[in-house]
This record gives sequence, C-alpha cells and structure tokens, in this order.
Amino acid sequence: MTTAKRDTYTPTTLLQVAVQVFNERGYDGTSMEHLSRAAGISKSSIYHHVTGKEELLRLAVSRALDGLFGILDEEHARVGPAAGRLEYVVRRMVEVLIAELPYVTLLLRVRGNTDTERRALERRRDFDHRVADLLKAAAAEGDIRGDVEVRLATRLVFGMINSVVEWYRPDGRGMGEREVSDAVVRLVFGGLRNPE
Amino acid sequence: MTTAKRDTYTPTTLLQVAVQVFNERGYDGTSMEHLSRAAGISKSSIYHHVTGKEELLRLAVSRALDGLFGILDEEHARVGPAAGRLEYVVRRMVEVLIAELPYVTLLLRVRGNTDTERRALERRRDFDHRVADLLKAAAAEGDIRGDVEVRLATRLVFGMINSVVEWYRPDGRGMGEREVSDAVVRLVFGGLRNPE
Repeated sequence: MTTAKRDTYTPTTLLQVAVQVFNERGYDGTSMEHLSRAAGISKSSIYHHVTGKEELLRLAVSRALDGLFGILDEEHARVGPAAGRLEYVVRRMVEVLIAELPYVTLLLRVRGNTDTERRALERRRDFDHRVADLLKAAAAEGDIRGDVEVRLATRLVFGMINSVVEWYRPDGRGMGEREVSDAVVRLVFGGLRNPE
Repeated sequence: MTTAKRDTYTPTTLLQVAVQVFNERGYDGTSMEHLSRAAGISKSSIYHHVTGKEELLRLAVSRALDGLFGILDEEHARVGPAAGRLEYVVRRMVEVLIAELPYVTLLLRVRGNTDTERRALERRRDFDHRVADLLKAAAAEGDIRGDVEVRLATRLVFGMINSVVEWYRPDGRGMGEREVSDAVVRLVFGGLRNPE
C-alpha cells in the first residue's frame, strides 16, 4: 500500500527521489511501484509528472551529461594552451561529479539495455573523445608525455576521476571537494613522485 | 528445463561458469537455476561440487584476493626502498587484475549483503591498508609527494588501476597486458606531464 501524501513534487524533487532508488536497486530492478513507495505518492501521480521510469532515467543522465558538456563551453576550457585547458577540464570534472554525485553515479552504471541508456553511452563516448582530443593536442604541443597512447591515457585518467563516486560522501565529515579536486589534478598531471 | 550433460566439471571449471553468470546477472540476481542452466548440468550435480551459490562466490573472490595478497609476499614487494616496492606492487596489481579479470571484476562489485561479501570487503580493506602503508613509507623516505594525503592518494591510484576491469578485454585485438601495465606505472608515478 502506498502511504497517501499530497503530491507537492516538482520535476526536480521527484527526480531526486527516483535517482536515489535507481542507485540503490539498479535501474532494471526498479519498478513504478518502488518509485511510488519511495516518493509516497500514487503511481498515477507520478504519471502526472512523467511518462514513466525511462523518462526519469533520461532526465537524470541528461542532468549529469549536461553538467559535463557544460565544462567544455567554459572559457578556460576553450582558450589557451591545450595542457592548461585539459587541467581545467579535469578539475571541473571532479567538481561536477561531486556536485551532481547521484546523477553521475547513475550515468556511470548505465549499461545500454534501453534506447535512453544507449543514447547516454553515446554522449559519454562523445565527451571522452572531446577530452582525448584535448590530450592529443597537449601532446602535440609537447606538454603531455608521448609514451602513453592517448586513448589509453584518457581511459586511465577517467578511471581515476570516476572512481570518486565509489567513496565520496558529502557528509560534512571527511574530505572537502577542494581537497579531492586538488589531489586529482596533482596526481593526473604530476603523479605520485615527489616533484621536489 | 536443464539440457542434460554429463557432469565433467572440476571445481575450477564450474567456478569459471559461475563467475561469468555472477558478472552478467549480478550475484543477487543469480539463482541456482541460472547456474544450472549456464553449466548445462542439474542443480543436484552442482550441489555435488559445492554447498550453494555463496560457496561459489567465496571461492571466486578468494581467488582474486589470494592473487592480490600473493603480490605482497613476492621478493620485490618486500625488499628495497618503499617507492620501488610500491612501483612493483602497482605493476603486479594490473597484471593480476588482467590475469584474473572475471574474478577481480566480481570482487570489485561485492557490496556486503552476505557474510561472504562482508569478509571479502574486509580483506579488500586490509589490502588497501597494506598498500597505503607502502605509500606512507615512500613519502617518509621523500620519494613520494607529501601534498596529497596518503589515504586519498591510495584511493585515487586504486581507482585508476581498478578501472581497467571496465574496458580491458583479452580478445587478442587491442592492447596487450604489458602496454596497460606500463601505462599505469608511468601515469601513477609520473603523471601526464611530459618528463622531458
């Protein structure tokens, strides 16, 4: 039984609830019944806001992807030597990942079982290619090492950045966003070796 | 219906099948019926080998963890300056991850819902601490940068290494194991910046 509750949701607040359920149960394992129970409103109230769970998924992964693509339009990502632009993009990726933690977490788990998921994977690949191009340009300008293949380097750098969703929790205790983004930038560009 | 097949499995080959199913369906989503169908033998034949799916999970994650802990007992991980030992451990982690790809993939997805999973998470944490200690020792010896907190650096380095399971496929085409382990060692210690 659904506990009756007045439907005071906006698309944004309903999405918040849905994304949490998707991340807990997996998208495939989530039914409209689960969403209705978590939101405390009836299924038909949910259908008043969206056409179904796939639209909620689309809205959620779009929010993550729009955040990431937005970085590439920012001035520091467009102007100056490629290595500086790349450093800016890496820092901002960590910031967006932390600011949109549940949405990016969901995006990173998408496996491609539905049209929405396949389109999300395609946009993720686009984004990866844009960053790989930046890396390639920085290598051509001599600022990035040439002994690691660009696609492989991009994958490994994304691996480090994306792993933040596995453990970062915005609970006030623990690490701040700035500490994490500084650390990622230092390790991605300088590595562990003592620079002194 | 299970297609009848003579049970010629050994514990090792049955484990191979089970791990593939676990990785495809998720451990929670896998039933004995799924395992029986994938193996082509009856459930009671499977029970002839193991007590149930949790034992298969235990065997699988133990194989991954034994591989990882084995690294720490190797001579190059025990002798010499900490930075050199750390570099050796990072390279060997990538090698073990690739050699035991399905087993490590399963290990990294374990969430702690059963005793077996909780024990696996505990052993993973132990391993993380052993590597963090090595990092701390290398920092004390002045070979590792001091401006990134040790626990955070360990998490980010593990993030890069573990991300290899997301895309590495041993299909003969594409990258070789050596190219990947070289790239990880270069990026973890030297970063992207051109060392020349």
